[in-house]
Amino acid sequence: MNETGRFIGVGVGPGDPELLTLKAVRLIRTADVICYLANRAGESQARHIARDALAESDKQQQYVPLLMPMSEDRTMANQVYDSATVEISTALTMGKSVVFLCEGDPLFFGSFAYMLERLNPERVGGHSICEVVPGISSVNAASAALQKPLTVLTESFSVVSGRHSLEQLTATLCNSDSVVIMKAGLSRPKILSALRQTDRINDAAYLEYIGRDNQRIETDVGQLADTAGPYFSLFVVTRSNRNTT
Amino acid sequence: MNETGRFIGVGVGPGDPELLTLKAVRLIRTADVICYLANRAGESQARHIARDALAESDKQQQYVPLLMPMSEDRTMANQVYDSATVEISTALTMGKSVVFLCEGDPLFFGSFAYMLERLNPERVGGHSICEVVPGISSVNAASAALQKPLTVLTESFSVVSGRHSLEQLTATLCNSDSVVIMKAGLSRPKILSALRQTDRINDAAYLEYIGRDNQRIETDVGQLADTAGPYFSLFVVTRSNRNTT
Repeated sequence: MNETGRFIGVGVGPGDPELLTLKAVRLIRTADVICYLANRAGESQARHIARDALAESDKQQQYVPLLMPMSEDRTMANQVYDSATVEISTALTMGKSVVFLCEGDPLFFGSFAYMLERLNPERVGGHSICEVVPGISSVNAASAALQKPLTVLTESFSVVSGRHSLEQLTATLCNSDSVVIMKAGLSRPKILSALRQTDRINDAAYLEYIGRDNQRIETDVGQLADTAGPYFSLFVVTRSNRNTT
Repeated sequence: MNETGRFIGVGVGPGDPELLTLKAVRLIRTADVICYLANRAGESQARHIARDALAESDKQQQYVPLLMPMSEDRTMANQVYDSATVEISTALTMGKSVVFLCEGDPLFFGSFAYMLERLNPERVGGHSICEVVPGISSVNAASAALQKPLTVLTESFSVVSGRHSLEQLTATLCNSDSVVIMKAGLSRPKILSALRQTDRINDAAYLEYIGRDNQRIETDVGQLADTAGPYFSLFVVTRSNRNTT
């Protein structure tokens, strides 16, 4: 082939393989190259969520795992993104379609942004060779599991992450009616402290591994241990006395 | 049938029929009763988005449109929800499965919350008869269309709507790095004013009818007329000078 291929970020949702969109399934089945983040042992949540769609492909697909170091140091992660960019660019030049599997939604608190910024400048005839297919984010999956609206009427709504400081967390909990706190794993003690300081511990629910076999929902957040939890966990904070009429 | 049926809110995404999830398609195909909001002429965006899945059903499905009055007065809308609740309860008692089609995600700025609060108290053996299937929200669809991450690293992120006051809009635009402003239609003049007052007009992009044939993306928001736009429109505001490393 002499044409230039396409680089497509595909959201695979929070964990349930049935929460892939029809578009995600079609693009995963027909891709020439499948990329995904993996740990040093080669295990990948995104690939696991997409397993049914991958199994249905009748193509000889090339897998490109991005083996991520367990480190807070961005230097090593950037090296992984840089070297994947070289490999993906080569495939694109050969006219191949490259799908990057993303947990949840590709552009919502994910790593796909780092790949997009490296590959998006490559334009053919003024057109981007990149495409993004949105996915179900854990924010929406969490409110569905809780059967609780994120906002009603003119409530305010913010999303923060465990990476934010205690001050940022308490300010957001004071200023917003509804708050989702993503990436709660390592930061659970800090988050619990912010919820207690702002007297919102009774407004909060805690969720782990939404839509997977080991899903856990804790609506009595005061019972949670003040220790780190798993990476795939979040808090949903909503006013307990809501006026919906 | 003698068992109690299930009431399922199903998100159908922002407009592209291919952005339905596999789970949404399965539940729509197999439902006994299909509910959706419609205007006085019987037209329904949610039903239109789900048209392929509905056409594939081999069941004799009963359609229950909720004909919504064009009015800011909540009284008439509440009457529509109340009378639909009676009809749906009857179907559930007969053991039927009832799917409520929701644009975007059922619990994110939608009307499904009003049905859920009416039907959720009905519990069988302590278990809710309600279920919620998340959908792609217009927030995620918008960032995908723009190919722009909603947040990078520790940026803060808020979602507000055109229903908020000018003061709430300007406060949020000052305090949050990224802001999505939903339901921008009638409130466009107020929103443009808030963007100018906070000097964030150049951080903003405007989108209409995402994923539909008449999709419009305006990245030069200063060009927008100071008049009302269509209901299905929103603004995405992100810092123009982002540090992603």
